[in-house]
Amino acid sequence: MDDELLSSEAFTVRLRRVGELHYHDKHPFHTRMHEGELSREQLQAWVANRFYYQRNIPVKDALILSKIPSREDRRIWIQRIVDHDGSTENEGGIETWIRLGETVGLSREEMWDDRHLLPAVRFAVDAYVNFCRHKPWVEAVASSLTELFVPILMSHRIAVFERVYPWIKQEGLEYFRSRLVQAPRDAEHGLRVVLRECSSRKEQEQAIAALTFKCDVLWSILDALSLKYPVKDH
Amino acid sequence: MDDELLSSEAFTVRLRRVGELHYHDKHPFHTRMHEGELSREQLQAWVANRFYYQRNIPVKDALILSKIPSREDRRIWIQRIVDHDGSTENEGGIETWIRLGETVGLSREEMWDDRHLLPAVRFAVDAYVNFCRHKPWVEAVASSLTELFVPILMSHRIAVFERVYPWIKQEGLEYFRSRLVQAPRDAEHGLRVVLRECSSRKEQEQAIAALTFKCDVLWSILDALSLKYPVKDH
Repeated sequence: MDDELLSSEAFTVRLRRVGELHYHDKHPFHTRMHEGELSREQLQAWVANRFYYQRNIPVKDALILSKIPSREDRRIWIQRIVDHDGSTENEGGIETWIRLGETVGLSREEMWDDRHLLPAVRFAVDAYVNFCRHKPWVEAVASSLTELFVPILMSHRIAVFERVYPWIKQEGLEYFRSRLVQAPRDAEHGLRVVLRECSSRKEQEQAIAALTFKCDVLWSILDALSLKYPVKDH
Repeated sequence: MDDELLSSEAFTVRLRRVGELHYHDKHPFHTRMHEGELSREQLQAWVANRFYYQRNIPVKDALILSKIPSREDRRIWIQRIVDHDGSTENEGGIETWIRLGETVGLSREEMWDDRHLLPAVRFAVDAYVNFCRHKPWVEAVASSLTELFVPILMSHRIAVFERVYPWIKQEGLEYFRSRLVQAPRDAEHGLRVVLRECSSRKEQEQAIAALTFKCDVLWSILDALSLKYPVKDH
């Protein structure tokens, strides 16, 4: 029965299961972060390295946009790029991430010039961008479905950060707040596309593999950070 | 002196000279069109074939968007995609081009299914998209500078079409009207980028070559149409 098409429900369960098993919220570095155990230096390293991911989001989304065949889906997808770049100078996810960096003590300049960027983080993020560049567009969309797991993570993160890192100013958390609104909307569209376009079991399995790959990318970022900035074992 | 950097003025003159020599307004098929000598069948063939170009504009613009390094330039460039796809169902350059097609007697379906698309037109448009996919982003931007030559052409076309093809309904000309506003704004930004980014004579010559290439693409579309639907010699 391995080539039998999964129902939308069963397919969705399989996709969500990827998150339960592989999403980076279970990585020790992440666990420690949400327990308030990261030093200021470790938080800075996380923000600076993760910035390389953040600033590549419009790149991968423009690559996906170039492959989406219908105007209808492109009109929705393009909002992701607007969300990250903003429409004016002081807007957008890249800008709010930079402000998070400033709040934890990084300068704008040292985020843009990649001086803290670890090679393995660069490789992981570049692998993700190249996945979106070269793979069929539905797999690229499927890889974005980590957004299914974002809302719970973000609401938790905001509450935790306010409590355990009280020295981080409120405005530093703006990025996380904006994702509370954007991620569910993006995930809803992404999931709708993947459910609609995967018309064979093979395509469904490829979508599941794409989402697993994306979880590996996020996990690798934290692996690289852990190696350079070890966290305490429990 | 062949490797001496051109002044902005001299570089701009060279770019404009490409249009004077190679822009498709001088192609016999285009000349006949603006003289009112195309049959309804020829006009239909032009609209249907040119549609393949139109619907690839958001594709090439998303590819360029994925390569533009700054948020500032991306925020401006993204408007091109919005202009062509529209923000809602009944908007955008692709939609107004389809309405032009309907006005000259083509169905929506026969535009989307490419049944009138000539192989050489497909090859030319695909070559343009691949140019934008593979070439450095500044060359891709330079290739868009045919927009420098659009406003004069469009204002002429609207006046001519109203006179020589009175059977084309006013709403069919909406695409040309929208380009009167969009093209100068796009050309201004494109030219600004090319002048700013080309910091060696070699890069300036590559930009000029890119614009020449783009003129060849537009010219080839009309060559293919002429061969299949010959126009009278003068």
